[in-house]
Amino acid sequence: MPDVTVTRRLRFNAAHRVHNPALSDAENTALFGKCNHPNWHGHNYVLEVSVTGPIDPVSGYVVDLGRVRDVVEREVIDQVDHRNLNLDVPFLAGANPTSENIVVAMWGVIAPAIAPARLSRLRLWETENNYVEYDGR
Amino acid sequence: MPDVTVTRRLRFNAAHRVHNPALSDAENTALFGKCNHPNWHGHNYVLEVSVTGPIDPVSGYVVDLGRVRDVVEREVIDQVDHRNLNLDVPFLAGANPTSENIVVAMWGVIAPAIAPARLSRLRLWETENNYVEYDGR
Amino acid sequence: MPDVTVTRRLRFNAAHRVHNPALSDAENTALFGKCNHPNWHGHNYVLEVSVTGPIDPVSGYVVDLGRVRDVVEREVIDQVDHRNLNLDVPFLAGANPTSENIVVAMWGVIAPAIAPARLSRLRLWETENNYVEYDGR
Amino acid sequence: MPDVTVTRRLRFNAAHRVHNPALSDAENTALFGKCNHPNWHGHNYVLEVSVTGPIDPVSGYVVDLGRVRDVVEREVIDQVDHRNLNLDVPFLAGANPTSENIVVAMWGVIAPAIAPARLSRLRLWETENNYVEYDGR
Amino acid sequence: MPDVTVTRRLRFNAAHRVHNPALSDAENTALFGKCNHPNWHGHNYVLEVSVTGPIDPVSGYVVDLGRVRDVVEREVIDQVDHRNLNLDVPFLAGANPTSENIVVAMWGVIAPAIAPARLSRLRLWETENNYVEYDGR
Amino acid sequence: MPDVTVTRRLRFNAAHRVHNPALSDAENTALFGKCNHPNWHGHNYVLEVSVTGPIDPVSGYVVDLGRVRDVVEREVIDQVDHRNLNLDVPFLAGANPTSENIVVAMWGVIAPAIAPARLSRLRLWETENNYVEYDGR
Repeated sequence: MPDVTVTRRLRFNAAHRVHNPALSDAENTALFGKCNHPNWHGHNYVLEVSVTGPIDPVSGYVVDLGRVRDVVEREVIDQVDHRNLNLDVPFLAGANPTSENIVVAMWGVIAPAIAPARLSRLRLWETENNYVEYDGR
Repeated sequence: MPDVTVTRRLRFNAAHRVHNPALSDAENTALFGKCNHPNWHGHNYVLEVSVTGPIDPVSGYVVDLGRVRDVVEREVIDQVDHRNLNLDVPFLAGANPTSENIVVAMWGVIAPAIAPARLSRLRLWETENNYVEYDGR
Repeated sequence: MPDVTVTRRLRFNAAHRVHNPALSDAENTALFGKCNHPNWHGHNYVLEVSVTGPIDPVSGYVVDLGRVRDVVEREVIDQVDHRNLNLDVPFLAGANPTSENIVVAMWGVIAPAIAPARLSRLRLWETENNYVEYDGR
Repeated sequence: MPDVTVTRRLRFNAAHRVHNPALSDAENTALFGKCNHPNWHGHNYVLEVSVTGPIDPVSGYVVDLGRVRDVVEREVIDQVDHRNLNLDVPFLAGANPTSENIVVAMWGVIAPAIAPARLSRLRLWETENNYVEYDGR
Repeated sequence: MPDVTVTRRLRFNAAHRVHNPALSDAENTALFGKCNHPNWHGHNYVLEVSVTGPIDPVSGYVVDLGRVRDVVEREVIDQVDHRNLNLDVPFLAGANPTSENIVVAMWGVIAPAIAPARLSRLRLWETENNYVEYDGR
Repeated sequence: MPDVTVTRRLRFNAAHRVHNPALSDAENTALFGKCNHPNWHGHNYVLEVSVTGPIDPVSGYVVDLGRVRDVVEREVIDQVDHRNLNLDVPFLAGANPTSENIVVAMWGVIAPAIAPARLSRLRLWETENNYVEYDGR
C-alpha cells in the first residue's frame, strides 16, 4: 500500500517581537533590528500541516483532514490566533518566537495530538516572502 | 551530471462525491458528511507534475515540458476536465474519488506515458487549503 | 463623513452544468460545449461581498465584517457549498447557473439580508481565470 | 488624451488591536471580540496605491511608479512597518486602527505627498480574506 | 435587465525596454533607469479583459467568454507572446512600451474585435506589484 | 538539535531566449519553438533560496534571512534583474538559459557565498505554471 502525504493549510494572525530575554536590549537591537521593536509587530501566519501514511481502504483517506483541522485548531490555532506569541502562548513560554522556534514548538504539540496519524512536515509562512519547514528530525 | 526536478502545473474542473459503494448510505454519510452529498459537488483541481533527471546537454532540458503538458493533457486532463470523477473516468472506475485515490490512479496513467522521463512527484490541490502528494512509493 | 468600501471573501465548492431547460439537448450542446456535460462538473467558487458606507465613529467600522460573514454564510454559502447549483438551491430554482445568473440571484438574497448596510458589489470567481461582477444596477 | 490608472502594491507588517479608548473595556470586548485582545495581534498588510491621469507623452508614464513607491515608503511604510498601529504612528495618533480608519488616514498623508499626481484609490488588505477601498470621497 | 461585468484573464511572456526613441540615450537612461537596459528585460504579463452588458436570456451569458478568449488570443496574445514589444508587434510600432501605452494600444485592437460586446476595462499586470487599468475614456 | 529549513523568496525580471549556439538556427527552431524567438522574450522569475541547519540557540535563527537576502541580491539578483540572460550575465556566459541551466549555475554562485550556512534547495519559477528545483546533487 503506497504512502501518500496529505496537507491542510490553516491561518492565524498574531503579534510578536524577535527578542532573546537572556541578552541586553542593545544586543537584541544589534542582532534583530526592526524585528525587535519593543511595541511588537505582527503577521498573518499560514501553517501547512502534513500527514503521511497508507490510504485507508474503507475511507480512501490517509487521515480525515477534517479531524486534522479540528485538532490543530483546538491545540494550536486557538492558542495563537489574535494573540501575542511572546506573552500569551503556553507552548511558547520563554521562547524567542522566531519562525524556527515556533515551528519546532508546534511540532511538539501537534505530533502527539494527531497520533496515531503520522505528522511528516510543518511549513510555516511568516510573510509571502519567507517560510520555514520542519520534519521532526 | 546533477539531477534537477522540473514541474508543470495543470488545471481541471470536475464534479465528484466522496462515496464508498461497499458501504451503506448511512455509513457513507457518517464517514464523509457533506462531501458525500448525493447530487455531487465539485472543485477546480490543480495538478503539479514533476519529472526528475539529469539535464540533457543538447537541449538544456531535463525533459521538454511542452511534451509533458501534451501527454498529461491527453491522458489525464481530457479524461477528467468538465467530467464527473465517480461516473465518467475510466482510470477511476470503481474508485472512491478522494484526492488520495485520484493521485495514485493518475500516477498509474502518467508514469508510463511519459517514460523514459522519470515521474518523481504528483501534487494535487483540491482547494486552496488542501492538497496531496505522491512519489510512487 | 467619507464613504469606504469593505469586502469579505468567502468560498464554496459546488457542482453544476450550464444548461437552459427551454432548449433541446442539441441546442444546449451547441451553445455550451463541455460546460453542458450531463454528469456535471464543478468549481471552487470564491465570492467577494462588498459593503459601502460612512465609517461609524463608535466602532470605526463601515459594518462589522463578522456579521457580514455570518449572514452570507447562513443565507448563501450554506445553501450552495457541497451542493448542486442546478438541483439543490432554492434561490437558483429554474435558473441556468452561469456565473452571471448566480451573481444576480445572490444579490437578491444578500442585499436585503445585510440591510441597512448597503451592498455595493459582488464579485464571483468561477476559476482563477474568470470572474463576474455585479453592482445591483 | 485618455486617463489611465496605475497601481503600486506595497507591504508592511504591524501589530494592532481594535480598541476605542472612549469606551469601557467591557464595551470594547463586546464590540470587537478577539480583535480587542489587550496584548495585541498583527497582520501582513498589503497596500495598493493607485494614481489616475493622462499619459505623459515624453515618458509614456502616468506617473513614475518608482517615485510613488519612494514617497509612500518614506511617508507611510516606514512609519508603520514593524510598528504598533495604536502606539507608534503619528498619523494614527488617537485613532482606533480599523482598516477603515487606517486607509482614510493614509489617504491624508499620501494624497498631498504625491501631488500633483492625483491619488485615485487606496486598497488595504488586512488578511487574504478582507480588504477596504477608499477613493477620497 | 441588469448589467453584469465578466472578465477573462490571459497571460503572455514578452521582452521589452522602456525607451523613447525621440530622446538621447543619456536622457533615456536618466528617465527610465534599469528599465531602459539596451539588451532588454521581460515580464510574465497578465491581461484581464472585461466586458459589460445585460445577460442574454437564452444563454445566461453577457458574452461567451470562450469567444472573448479566442478573439483576444488571436488579435493580441499571439502578437505579443514570446515576442519583443519594441520590435515585433504591429499595434505597438513606434510606441514606448510602458504598461500605460501597451494597455491603450490593446484597447484599440480588442474593442472593435469583440464588438458588439462592449469592452469596459482592461487591467494589465506587469509584475505582481504593479498593474494599470484603462476603461476607454 | 533538530534541523529546520528556512526559505527566502526573491524576484527578478529578465529577457532570454532558449538557444543552443552549437546548433543551427533550423535545429534551434525545431527544438525550442517560440522559446527560441530571435528578438527575445522574458519572464518575472521567482527564486526561492533554502538553507537547512540547526537553530542557533542565541538568535533562534538557522541563519539570518536578512543576510541571505543581501548576499543573494548582490551575487545573483543584481546580475540578472532587468538584464538579458543570454548576453549580460557572467555566471551564465555560454550557457543556454533554460530554467534547469539557470538554477544549477545559481547554485554554483550562492552555495559558496552563503557558507558556512548550508544551501539545501533552490526553486526557480519561470511562470506561474512551471518551476524547477535543485538540491546540489
